[in-house]
Amino acid sequence: MTEQQQPSAQQRAIVEAGFAKANFIGDVGIHMTDCGVGWVEAAVDILPRHAQQNGFVHAGVQTTLADHTAGAAAGMLAPEGYTVLTLEFKVNLLRPALCERLLCRAEVLKAGRQVSVVESEVFAMIDGEKRLFSKATVTMAVVQMSD
Amino acid sequence: MTEQQQPSAQQRAIVEAGFAKANFIGDVGIHMTDCGVGWVEAAVDILPRHAQQNGFVHAGVQTTLADHTAGAAAGMLAPEGYTVLTLEFKVNLLRPALCERLLCRAEVLKAGRQVSVVESEVFAMIDGEKRLFSKATVTMAVVQMSD
Amino acid sequence: MTEQQQPSAQQRAIVEAGFAKANFIGDVGIHMTDCGVGWVEAAVDILPRHAQQNGFVHAGVQTTLADHTAGAAAGMLAPEGYTVLTLEFKVNLLRPALCERLLCRAEVLKAGRQVSVVESEVFAMIDGEKRLFSKATVTMAVVQMSD
Amino acid sequence: MTEQQQPSAQQRAIVEAGFAKANFIGDVGIHMTDCGVGWVEAAVDILPRHAQQNGFVHAGVQTTLADHTAGAAAGMLAPEGYTVLTLEFKVNLLRPALCERLLCRAEVLKAGRQVSVVESEVFAMIDGEKRLFSKATVTMAVVQMSD
Repeated sequence: MTEQQQPSAQQRAIVEAGFAKANFIGDVGIHMTDCGVGWVEAAVDILPRHAQQNGFVHAGVQTTLADHTAGAAAGMLAPEGYTVLTLEFKVNLLRPALCERLLCRAEVLKAGRQVSVVESEVFAMIDGEKRLFSKATVTMAVVQMSD
Repeated sequence: MTEQQQPSAQQRAIVEAGFAKANFIGDVGIHMTDCGVGWVEAAVDILPRHAQQNGFVHAGVQTTLADHTAGAAAGMLAPEGYTVLTLEFKVNLLRPALCERLLCRAEVLKAGRQVSVVESEVFAMIDGEKRLFSKATVTMAVVQMSD
Repeated sequence: MTEQQQPSAQQRAIVEAGFAKANFIGDVGIHMTDCGVGWVEAAVDILPRHAQQNGFVHAGVQTTLADHTAGAAAGMLAPEGYTVLTLEFKVNLLRPALCERLLCRAEVLKAGRQVSVVESEVFAMIDGEKRLFSKATVTMAVVQMSD
Repeated sequence: MTEQQQPSAQQRAIVEAGFAKANFIGDVGIHMTDCGVGWVEAAVDILPRHAQQNGFVHAGVQTTLADHTAGAAAGMLAPEGYTVLTLEFKVNLLRPALCERLLCRAEVLKAGRQVSVVESEVFAMIDGEKRLFSKATVTMAVVQMSD
């Protein structure tokens, strides 16, 4: 799972399809930006419609981004004919999120046969520095694809 | 926190404002349906745009609903001049969610001076029976409102 | 999973063995007190050795109790030849715990083929009233027993 | 919070006292092994009494270690006259734990005025390689010390 390792064409296709086929992801404006073996990065340009009642980015936007990106990272490593479904996740919101572009990087902590665990960081680059808004741990079931 | 107890006009106003002022909640289509002292119920009519890649309701829709409804329930019990912000939450997705209308009920487990804890159930009524899709535990900081 | 339903002799034996065979459970002083189909209750008499630095019951005692009792409840419902292993849990510590006898009740929220989810409450009876100290949600993998 | 930075004598004393004064920590056999500004390391020599029913290290041992070490790391950074109490934690058990000596490293992810968040890794060194057994995220309240 080193960053240097290039994903196979099939792995990249799995990640891309996971974003393209999920309506809610398009609806929120989330798109994949990069991926490697065991990690995926995604982003969303923040608009007024993403706000909660105090003007910050809604926790729901952050967790949608964190969960979906985690799923793509784990799905890429699932055996052929298998996909992943989120069993549970936990997210800490570290500070109110204000930014123009919200980023996420998900990295697989453990890719198992039945269960995978992924960590997602949600952050922005502000004045060239990474500002971490939330961090999630996502547990996913590895399940056979149904046709 | 018994269900029989009616919320004050001010408590109801806090809940209603918490839904009305949050852009992302309107964007996703979530609205408050009922509330009492220490609990809030909300709903969202499921459309194709809420789906994940396999056609189920996206986890992000469920957690946005669970988190926001929890915040309203805890916010209602915060002292005057105070509001709540989500510190963290954990959600278990118990089964794939398919339904026409997704419901949520959030109940305060502990209303503290600094921290409140709320439980949210996300479910549908199918053939007259409650089908539980996910359950979240939400920890919220009680913070002074800034003007 | 109603409380009225009596567990089978085999289910009770699974629960009893789960407590008897776990050395750390005996070491901490935890014992099973009752069980039904899909729920288990356990207790520990609190001694000075269970304290954290301020004199309260250590979170580790509470989570050992919550996790183990949850495992017994889920294990009872696993198919023959299968057992459960904790994948993850989350616990909220609602207030500092001071008591003579710490109790736990674990109830299965979902018994699945691959994964079960259990909720555990850790509390004491003080002046005849239940005082809730912590609440945990435990996700368990259903795995084949190895011989 | 760089590793190079030496903790002050007072910070080290806070960490040492946090381990020495907690009865349950001594009872389980956990001791602090090293610390820096914003991080603490601890260890426990595994004995038969630490086992669960299948012979692995009990999740309760791992979470006691993870939570307590996290508390020491956050407590070190609390303002004078303040200490920390665990609000909640979540732990993923990544694989069954078998080892002679269980290690933990806790690092502060965010040190706040009201709330701090710490990550703890529980692992063993096996044949010179780190084998990660569990990872926890711990949320702590920063509270005034009572005399």
